[in-house]
Amino acid sequence: EKTGTCYRADHLLKDYCNEKLEKDLTISDKKATELKDVLANLEDFSCEKLGAKIKEYEITAPDTKNTLSDPYPFNLMFQTSIGPSAANIGYMRPETAQGIFMDFKELYNYNGRKLPFAAAQVGQAFRNEISPRQGLLRVREFTLAEIEHFLDPEDKAHPKFSNVAKLEFFMFQREEQMPGQSARKLCLGEAVEKGIVNSETLAYFIGRVYLFLVRLGIDKERLRFRQHLANEMAHYAADCWDAEIETSYGWIECVGIADRSSYDLHAHSEKSGVELQAEEKFSEPKEVVKLVITPMTKELSLAFKENKKKVVLSLKAMNEEEAMLMKATLESEGGIEFYVCTLAKNVTIKKNMVSISKEKTKEHQRKFIPSVIEPSFGIGRIVYCLYEHCFSTRPSKAGDEQLNVFRFSPLVAPIKCTVFPLVRNQQYEEATKVISKELTSFGILHKIDITGTSIGKKYARSDELGVPFAITVDSKTLVTIRERDSKNQVRVNLKDAASVVSSLAKGKMTWRDVSPKRLSSAAAADNTLAESMYPELFSLDGDDDSET
Amino acid sequence: EKTGTCYRADHLLKDYCNEKLEKDLTISDKKATELKDVLANLEDFSCEKLGAKIKEYEITAPDTKNTLSDPYPFNLMFQTSIGPSAANIGYMRPETAQGIFMDFKELYNYNGRKLPFAAAQVGQAFRNEISPRQGLLRVREFTLAEIEHFLDPEDKAHPKFSNVAKLEFFMFQREEQMPGQSARKLCLGEAVEKGIVNSETLAYFIGRVYLFLVRLGIDKERLRFRQHLANEMAHYAADCWDAEIETSYGWIECVGIADRSSYDLHAHSEKSGVELQAEEKFSEPKEVVKLVITPMTKELSLAFKENKKKVVLSLKAMNEEEAMLMKATLESEGGIEFYVCTLAKNVTIKKNMVSISKEKTKEHQRKFIPSVIEPSFGIGRIVYCLYEHCFSTRPSKAGDEQLNVFRFSPLVAPIKCTVFPLVRNQQYEEATKVISKELTSFGILHKIDITGTSIGKKYARSDELGVPFAITVDSKTLVTIRERDSKNQVRVNLKDAASVVSSLAKGKMTWRDVSPKRLSSAAAADNTLAESMYPELFSLDGDDDSET
Repeated sequence: EKTGTCYRADHLLKDYCNEKLEKDLTISDKKATELKDVLANLEDFSCEKLGAKIKEYEITAPDTKNTLSDPYPFNLMFQTSIGPSAANIGYMRPETAQGIFMDFKELYNYNGRKLPFAAAQVGQAFRNEISPRQGLLRVREFTLAEIEHFLDPEDKAHPKFSNVAKLEFFMFQREEQMPGQSARKLCLGEAVEKGIVNSETLAYFIGRVYLFLVRLGIDKERLRFRQHLANEMAHYAADCWDAEIETSYGWIECVGIADRSSYDLHAHSEKSGVELQAEEKFSEPKEVVKLVITPMTKELSLAFKENKKKVVLSLKAMNEEEAMLMKATLESEGGIEFYVCTLAKNVTIKKNMVSISKEKTKEHQRKFIPSVIEPSFGIGRIVYCLYEHCFSTRPSKAGDEQLNVFRFSPLVAPIKCTVFPLVRNQQYEEATKVISKELTSFGILHKIDITGTSIGKKYARSDELGVPFAITVDSKTLVTIRERDSKNQVRVNLKDAASVVSSLAKGKMTWRDVSPKRLSSAAAADNTLAESMYPELFSLDGDDDSET
Repeated sequence: EKTGTCYRADHLLKDYCNEKLEKDLTISDKKATELKDVLANLEDFSCEKLGAKIKEYEITAPDTKNTLSDPYPFNLMFQTSIGPSAANIGYMRPETAQGIFMDFKELYNYNGRKLPFAAAQVGQAFRNEISPRQGLLRVREFTLAEIEHFLDPEDKAHPKFSNVAKLEFFMFQREEQMPGQSARKLCLGEAVEKGIVNSETLAYFIGRVYLFLVRLGIDKERLRFRQHLANEMAHYAADCWDAEIETSYGWIECVGIADRSSYDLHAHSEKSGVELQAEEKFSEPKEVVKLVITPMTKELSLAFKENKKKVVLSLKAMNEEEAMLMKATLESEGGIEFYVCTLAKNVTIKKNMVSISKEKTKEHQRKFIPSVIEPSFGIGRIVYCLYEHCFSTRPSKAGDEQLNVFRFSPLVAPIKCTVFPLVRNQQYEEATKVISKELTSFGILHKIDITGTSIGKKYARSDELGVPFAITVDSKTLVTIRERDSKNQVRVNLKDAASVVSSLAKGKMTWRDVSPKRLSSAAAADNTLAESMYPELFSLDGDDDSET
């Protein structure tokens, strides 16, 4: 109330409860239960309830201890004005997905009017966070990657589900999310069979997200899929699971995999008046009982004049239950009060104004609004978690310091290879340039180090940047390739060096394949010779950080 | 003035002049010369001058013919507020480059404190255009890709310049941009020698941009590099060339390649107080004559009290000319009026307050603010121009319609290959799936067409999407690969199909390489047999659009 600084009301209350429970040993059991109850139900609290609790607990501003105003809602979308007129208000998108829903008709046609199909996009999203924090984890501009997989709500099987059905990983289902409980390893196929995961397709994407994250380098022991609680989930969602990764900040939600049912297409269709539907053609016509609502235009015109059209549309929009109730009431009482939302008022419908019946007809196709399964990836969060999971230290050879190593897999390491001459001389430097040129032609991003520092320091620098391979030019015809994590080394012909590293970096070859006997015999034979020539490159362990 | 609609004043004036010159045959020669003069100098017009001309020519609103208000400046940056307080104003970035300048120190250290080096980034930029138009060409949110190449302003040579020096393409130098003139083909090496392009490094990037655009598929006969006129160029720029591509909207600026000198680093350094410099270590110390300004703190303290610090900083910031003038004036008159910008006023400096001299010293290094060469790519514009340059039509076999073909090169085509069975049967459909799976493993994006339409229609669809290759499964062991532009076809073993298309799509093989005799002999031998079996696949030309 004094400085104008703003805080998130729910965070203030949460922090207060957590601190009391952790640090205040004098609180009664009753009080403790109450605070735990607040924490459990925080997400459901209204603005008024949050304000009342803040007053009750006498919570003040964290920095200044000043009193706080009542909470008020805050729009997390950035507002701006578009074009030269200030009246033309616009908002920066808080998620990228809606563009795909708007394009549904084009995408459906593009796919030959068949389901299922998916569209994916990567883009910037913007949220006006009240208090951005935790590095890349809560920022105001971030990169989202989203897939919208459209499917028939009556058939959520997935033809490739068997590819992931045997996967086992940590899942934390809704019913088990009690204090003291933690995620259990479950087999994905069983989770679908037991109905823990709502559908095969949802489970398929959970499995693929698991494989994706683990392949990037996320530690599978610190990865879990947590099901949304009923109060977290949007009202329209059929099921939702978050891929959560454990970091020093706790469990971080990095990917959300939600069955959003047909909500988005439905909402766009309703607001725009454009039909966003798919159809299933029947191999032979089916007999169906169909609701037929026939407004009597003449009578409606007389009764409602210029409002007739809106009344007609509202009558036609009735669902079966509403229509049958109207039919019964009209028959028994001759008239009914009917709310027309576009007029925002009730009108009186009389028996002669509408005919309602159920008729048997033959249908050649079924029309429906597709459901959508949406995996949504927070790219910055995944990158941050990868940093934590790949970071490690190991002692230098002298043991006097800890050296930093980023154990990025070759797949994601931004730099795949370091190239440097063992000593500074023209021949070695020329050879370094030749290898560099070849690496470029293979599309392998690399870094050249021709500084005068020792080989140990060069390896240490390379390790700290997470570079998986290093090529040391140590003769006119042969070079040494060194792998970051094992620190093992192998000698290959100079002319093969770039292609070997390219195969390693692209995952076409593993380090295990690059043993002397599997490489060209000329290079392999020379390994023994080389060992006697450059013993410092060939001791079994740790020589590469011999920097003092 | 009546509807509140806004227009760009310069556009109104430009449109008026162009229309008069083109359509009004009654205007005098004198008037025509005046209008041409306005067009030529439009970019230099002040707000007042624009307003005066609009009044003089009685220009009205294009749609309504209403009178116009005086022009006023309009901020092309979108404004928003950050966080919950409305007082915290922010703007959406109108270009992406500034982040690189802010990171200069980190990047310089990362590169081992050596020049030259470059940083590149791709991102969204936002400009609140008054009237967005022309499809992708003028939009409010767009993707920019920028390279900042930092270099020593005293050495703008480029080691790889010889790679591009022999290129010849259309260049439109400043002096030749007169009415009726057009770009001439110039050799890039000569353009540097003759001083038409300011430096080797700037020319190197011009050459690389040329190669990039042509490789994407831009027609080199409709591509020119136009040098900025003096009045277009930012005051600090040393030279600037735009890659312009000719489209149905005229010549479109798609890439700007500018030597921005040291302006950006200088400006960031000045505002932030952080030194953004590079150094060149001398192999042996150099003797230099250096300006030494020594403010006398005691005397300055007495005279200016709390303002002393600001006066000291201003004195130290004098350049050589200013300092030597002050020294002379102090010696002849004993005092001088000196403007201190941070105080926004003149103060009187007396002879005893500062000592100014030139001294010989030995220097071990030279410190300087690097220059920067910036190629800046408008991605959406390039994509749009590519659409125009790749679009073509050709008559259907029956000659009754024009079929659309996007001649995207395999490198940029979003879909590399279509796969479909010649007729619908289980064996062919199975084979189609096998090929699809292999294409996926090669990372080749493709589209399967198992609709019942004719082969001609399938090819026509594929051509319209710009897909360079199609695989038709027409036997259990052999398939036909068809190239989009030549419509030529070749038969290969089913098991080789995916790998051949992958090599073609990745540019490892050209269509010329895929002649029957170069492929495996088994498949080649079968081509004669196949021809007799499926004559509709083997006629010399045009069979593939035999759809009726």
